[in-house]
Amino acid sequence: MGSESAENVVERPNDWVLKSPVDDCMVLEPFAVFSGPVDMDSSSLIILNTPLDDIDIRHLWEKTSLHVCADGAANRIYEYFSDKERSDYIPQFITGDCDSLTTQVREYYEQHGTRVIPQYSQYSTDFMKSVKLVSIYHTNGRKQLREEVEEVDGLTQLMKEFPDPRPTNIYVAGGIDGRFDQTFQSINQLYTMKVDFPKLKVFFITAQDCIFLVPEGRNLIKYPSRSAFNSQESMPSCGLLPFGGRVTLNTEGLQYDVTNWTSFVGGPVSSNNRVVGINGFIVQTSGDIIMNVEVTHKRRKLL
Amino acid sequence: MGSESAENVVERPNDWVLKSPVDDCMVLEPFAVFSGPVDMDSSSLIILNTPLDDIDIRHLWEKTSLHVCADGAANRIYEYFSDKERSDYIPQFITGDCDSLTTQVREYYEQHGTRVIPQYSQYSTDFMKSVKLVSIYHTNGRKQLREEVEEVDGLTQLMKEFPDPRPTNIYVAGGIDGRFDQTFQSINQLYTMKVDFPKLKVFFITAQDCIFLVPEGRNLIKYPSRSAFNSQESMPSCGLLPFGGRVTLNTEGLQYDVTNWTSFVGGPVSSNNRVVGINGFIVQTSGDIIMNVEVTHKRRKLL
Repeated sequence: MGSESAENVVERPNDWVLKSPVDDCMVLEPFAVFSGPVDMDSSSLIILNTPLDDIDIRHLWEKTSLHVCADGAANRIYEYFSDKERSDYIPQFITGDCDSLTTQVREYYEQHGTRVIPQYSQYSTDFMKSVKLVSIYHTNGRKQLREEVEEVDGLTQLMKEFPDPRPTNIYVAGGIDGRFDQTFQSINQLYTMKVDFPKLKVFFITAQDCIFLVPEGRNLIKYPSRSAFNSQESMPSCGLLPFGGRVTLNTEGLQYDVTNWTSFVGGPVSSNNRVVGINGFIVQTSGDIIMNVEVTHKRRKLL
Repeated sequence: MGSESAENVVERPNDWVLKSPVDDCMVLEPFAVFSGPVDMDSSSLIILNTPLDDIDIRHLWEKTSLHVCADGAANRIYEYFSDKERSDYIPQFITGDCDSLTTQVREYYEQHGTRVIPQYSQYSTDFMKSVKLVSIYHTNGRKQLREEVEEVDGLTQLMKEFPDPRPTNIYVAGGIDGRFDQTFQSINQLYTMKVDFPKLKVFFITAQDCIFLVPEGRNLIKYPSRSAFNSQESMPSCGLLPFGGRVTLNTEGLQYDVTNWTSFVGGPVSSNNRVVGINGFIVQTSGDIIMNVEVTHKRRKLL
């Protein structure tokens, strides 16, 4: 007992086969969109109005079935794709307060079948409006999204009618790496969504990382192989980030595995760690944390 | 009493003259490097090994007297400056574990008078090694930095000999917007440095923001005018970010001023706020928080 409760860090070899039982773990598969196969019907893409240049939108698009642009994100994908490709990447929906969406872009996408759902409420971010839309889409309320939706806060009303979506993964392009308060709010929304949208799992995709919430408890982060989500680094970098307050961590499958390790802002934080589990690693945490894992995800050259 | 303790948010007009007494405030001047005049001798620049393209290094350089590159940051400034300008921007020091610094770049700067101080310890980041160097530089230990320094962890030893630096502002270019665990660790170091280096005030400068710690207590963030640090936005955007845990906030001089307002991760967070105080604003907080304020800070065109 004594030695088990001691705080400890051990360095693992480059390839690690999990030794602990995983039957009691919650299973997370944050890299499914990179490694496939993906259950397309339960995978959605939300594109935010922040720079997208270094994100491989084509790949994320092809691995998801529902595509939603938050307001001015539509301007960005309009520019992202060449004239030749643009009509192959038509989002089903554009929502938000529509103060950034240009007339030209709105007309282009509407002519190609996009449904624009303005939501003028200032009590919700364009990201959260998009999340509500994705939630409703995965209920029997889906067809209502093709009908008239009240333009101040109609999606919130519809959610009350159709509160229980099927489990869905949402990949989010953007929202990190812009103004720092916006980055922080994106992370904050991972915490609020765990409570408000428990069936939706959100993964932020940046030029370098996949960023997601690891909930309190014992979690298996599972993948077929590391090369399936990172072809450049054999041991992708990662961090265990205690945004929500002080936590005690136990891991298996990282380069620096920790045992009964206390982590908090202003104290020890596991950054510059690496993934060494060959097909998964375990994170056991006493409270919700954020994790980032480096993924290969470079924008392919324009055609 | 009752109404004073109620949680409240009020919207302020575009220009706000502070009404509360400021005599009891701790004064912070995070934008001095933009608005000048600056006490050059107590202002240092640390450049980190992350992309610098959108940061106006020339301006930061000219407003600071000590220039330190963390390891591979020297490669980046070598590329940042044209052949014509390069020799005008010679850092006094390069430190870190020197696993990224190229031979060509090291030789160039050494030939131009830069002192390279390798520190191979893996128990400290290249950023913290640079901070230690800045701290020693602002003591009577300055001349020791021109002598031989033990190459594993010599700066830590020197700090023990010369523990008490003069008060100094450190502007940091880089460290935010790269891999997300590195961003989080940069912020974490603002908290640890408050304890370990109380005389050093650190300001991260990104392409869009100035990011700094606002300590527990009553703080006046002071500037000559908003246009002095942001010529593009008359009301620069800002956020009050409770990285360190739950806090109660009172502000005066923001577009959405708060009274007895509780903020925490997973709950309310003041993002997308704006600075409206004409020459300052007050932030009173029950615990240390991070603040970001949008600054005009675009890289000038190459000569």
